[in-house]
Amino acid sequence: MNGKMVGYVLSRILFINALLMIPALLVALIYKEGWQGLSPFLLSIGITGGCGFLIGFRKPSNTDFFAREGLVLVALSWIALSFFGSLPFLLSGAIPNPIDAFFETASGFSTTGASILTNIESLSHSLLWWRSFTHLIGGMGVLVLALAVMPKIESGDVFIMRAEVPGPTFGKVRTKLRSSARILYVIYLSMTAVLVLLLALGGMPLFDSFIHAFGTAGTGGFSNKAASIAYYNSTYIDYVLAISMILFGINFNLYYALFFMRMKNILKNEELRWYLGFIAFAVLLICLNVRHLYSSIDLLVRDVFFTVATIITTTGYATANFDVWPVFSKVILLFLMFVGGMAGSTAGGIKVSRIAIYIKTTIQEIRVNVSPNRRLPILFEGKSIGPVLSRQTSVYLITYTFMFVIFLIITSLSAPNFTTAFTAVAATFNNIGPGLDAVGPAGNYAGFNNLTKFSLSLVMIMGRLEIFPILVLLSPRTWRRG
Amino acid sequence: MNGKMVGYVLSRILFINALLMIPALLVALIYKEGWQGLSPFLLSIGITGGCGFLIGFRKPSNTDFFAREGLVLVALSWIALSFFGSLPFLLSGAIPNPIDAFFETASGFSTTGASILTNIESLSHSLLWWRSFTHLIGGMGVLVLALAVMPKIESGDVFIMRAEVPGPTFGKVRTKLRSSARILYVIYLSMTAVLVLLLALGGMPLFDSFIHAFGTAGTGGFSNKAASIAYYNSTYIDYVLAISMILFGINFNLYYALFFMRMKNILKNEELRWYLGFIAFAVLLICLNVRHLYSSIDLLVRDVFFTVATIITTTGYATANFDVWPVFSKVILLFLMFVGGMAGSTAGGIKVSRIAIYIKTTIQEIRVNVSPNRRLPILFEGKSIGPVLSRQTSVYLITYTFMFVIFLIITSLSAPNFTTAFTAVAATFNNIGPGLDAVGPAGNYAGFNNLTKFSLSLVMIMGRLEIFPILVLLSPRTWRRG
Repeated sequence: MNGKMVGYVLSRILFINALLMIPALLVALIYKEGWQGLSPFLLSIGITGGCGFLIGFRKPSNTDFFAREGLVLVALSWIALSFFGSLPFLLSGAIPNPIDAFFETASGFSTTGASILTNIESLSHSLLWWRSFTHLIGGMGVLVLALAVMPKIESGDVFIMRAEVPGPTFGKVRTKLRSSARILYVIYLSMTAVLVLLLALGGMPLFDSFIHAFGTAGTGGFSNKAASIAYYNSTYIDYVLAISMILFGINFNLYYALFFMRMKNILKNEELRWYLGFIAFAVLLICLNVRHLYSSIDLLVRDVFFTVATIITTTGYATANFDVWPVFSKVILLFLMFVGGMAGSTAGGIKVSRIAIYIKTTIQEIRVNVSPNRRLPILFEGKSIGPVLSRQTSVYLITYTFMFVIFLIITSLSAPNFTTAFTAVAATFNNIGPGLDAVGPAGNYAGFNNLTKFSLSLVMIMGRLEIFPILVLLSPRTWRRG
Repeated sequence: MNGKMVGYVLSRILFINALLMIPALLVALIYKEGWQGLSPFLLSIGITGGCGFLIGFRKPSNTDFFAREGLVLVALSWIALSFFGSLPFLLSGAIPNPIDAFFETASGFSTTGASILTNIESLSHSLLWWRSFTHLIGGMGVLVLALAVMPKIESGDVFIMRAEVPGPTFGKVRTKLRSSARILYVIYLSMTAVLVLLLALGGMPLFDSFIHAFGTAGTGGFSNKAASIAYYNSTYIDYVLAISMILFGINFNLYYALFFMRMKNILKNEELRWYLGFIAFAVLLICLNVRHLYSSIDLLVRDVFFTVATIITTTGYATANFDVWPVFSKVILLFLMFVGGMAGSTAGGIKVSRIAIYIKTTIQEIRVNVSPNRRLPILFEGKSIGPVLSRQTSVYLITYTFMFVIFLIITSLSAPNFTTAFTAVAATFNNIGPGLDAVGPAGNYAGFNNLTKFSLSLVMIMGRLEIFPILVLLSPRTWRRG
């Protein structure tokens, strides 16, 4: 383990983190929040930057950087981001309990959108801005951002990219990581800017448009309204957001392909077809199941489409309280929570590509049992899945399930009932936000004790980073030999 | 597909099924139930035997019998057993709805113990006997029984054995299947007989002793008392049953080894250590969690030990209503429901050996991430797990999860809430019986609609046969080419 090199890059990440707090200062100035609004951010910037300075300023002589270093760096960076990012909440007194502040910030960076706040609307504009801005940063990944903006400092780009960008990789790993990271960020920010405009044109106040565009881009789900999107009660806004969420749940490599006018890549994409298929199927089933709750078909389709979009993309905005829907609809939504968005998108969950492979594996296994001598390969994206990818995908489900059980047991210690415990873990591990019952769209995570809130914070980061970086960080083996 | 050969063996299974109903006739005579008690069984024996006659009497000329035939035969046999086994309930009028009767019998043969009966104690002795006798038959497997008692009719013994005996195989497949099936049955029936004696000595009425010994041997869980084992309120009976359940959850190959005095095989058995470890750990955790509900430590340990034993062995007898325990204890029990007993035992669930391999796979994956170049094999039972077994174990979890989701969606259509839907599927798929909430130890499965009851019947059989036989039976591919 090249700890010095990890520290060196980590210090850069902290500098970036400090820089990213500067826009919040502007917000505090614009909304005339005075010293009370400015000081928490000024202090946080100072502390974050100062710590970055202390951790590692000079480039070490040994710049070896491999998979292990990449995983540890990514894990440490996200925990550090959540810690230093929580300072403004803590220093302003808006969230006095450090565990709560850590939870809220981890929820932001991991693009979960789960909240312990019971009175969101009392927060200052600058804090609301920062809270949602973490979604924008977390969505694309702060280390990918670092790759995009920093001069080349080491040889480990590919390991960082692999550890931070979610989902299995089916295409070629691009050689020019830095330039593609830059292009991805340009696409990402442009799409966010367009969304801000569309929302503002629909009558949403400009500040709210920023907040909700950040939450949508990162598929996070923080709102500045307690009633979430239901507050605006606008068909236009609902559809703009629902479609945007679905767009941000799409693999960004497809936008990259679009950027270079490679239309064939998009039309041929199998994961995209599965993704849109899941959405269409879920909308249909839920519409049939909840139609008795609605007087008009327009309102029915609007609410169901929005809810399916917000859940499968793991965003978590709400227009309808799906906790009062029939059990069948809730189970379908719960299934979508685990599916999540496409690999390489800002969404969480197990990812559509893995789910598609699991379904195909089951079908293939039946075939193998029927005719043991005719062993056909599993095809995905037109290619045969090799043994390495097949093994990785299987092992992911095993590890995912194993960690899920452990966190369910911990959460059950302070949950009022099984549904709350189960869906709290599902909603945080998959980076959604709302679950069912006490953590449903009308509830929040304030009711858990500190141990559970801290463990759920780790669950959110673990879910965002697809488990292994955090496990590697916590493994004693990582720290054993120099 | 050699359909004639499958039909030929299936007809033998139906003859055995008819023969197995004869003891119930004796019970009807002993308890002087008269024509009303005898006629349902006489008719059922006639119908079952007659259908056996019609399906295939003469041995076909082509006796080819491979894996596919084995799977289809096992699936068809268990569905046929559940269908013909339900006739006494139907013809006597005790369970007028055919779907209910099928559910109850599938629950019996699959050793689940889930019931749709709301007034068990009103059943006649002969029906209660038959209901529990199905546990005894289902526990060891009716096709293994056929192997043990029938003259050699084909070359497919190994395929039948593989399709019916649960769990991955780690030892060598024995060459003399028929003689070992006979020895296994002798061990199984002797243990059951000893248990009948022990229960009767403890003051349980002889009839009840038979009922509960059958339910324990098959790890089924049907009782002839509405209050289940709590009815007897006896420390002796509780401990005798709890320990017996744990013994019947042990791989029968170990008793086979004991029979031949191979003590080393038993002491070295890794799965056994995991199994006993899970039990000890669960008893400890739940005792700590529910101690405030008990006034005496004796009663606490007795109830918790019994409940852990009944759940991990997937039996389903109840002395305590664990549905009122804290969420933490319920989650631990739910975890044990999925673990189940050891491979090659009469218990259901995913099986201890698979769970152990999943845990080891997760740990190995962390190691691989920490040091990608040092790829160590996963060891189980002292041997390295080869790629075939590793793949099978992984694929089993994928298929298991996939089927679980499908059945959860179907069940949610008529479940009052998420906890009921989730635990109903968990308790039937893992062959336990009681779940939580509406299907908790104090509830039953009568509240579901016919579609759900039918699908849960298939879930129980699927769980008992470890999924693939039923999937192969339902696959159109199986029936495509001659």
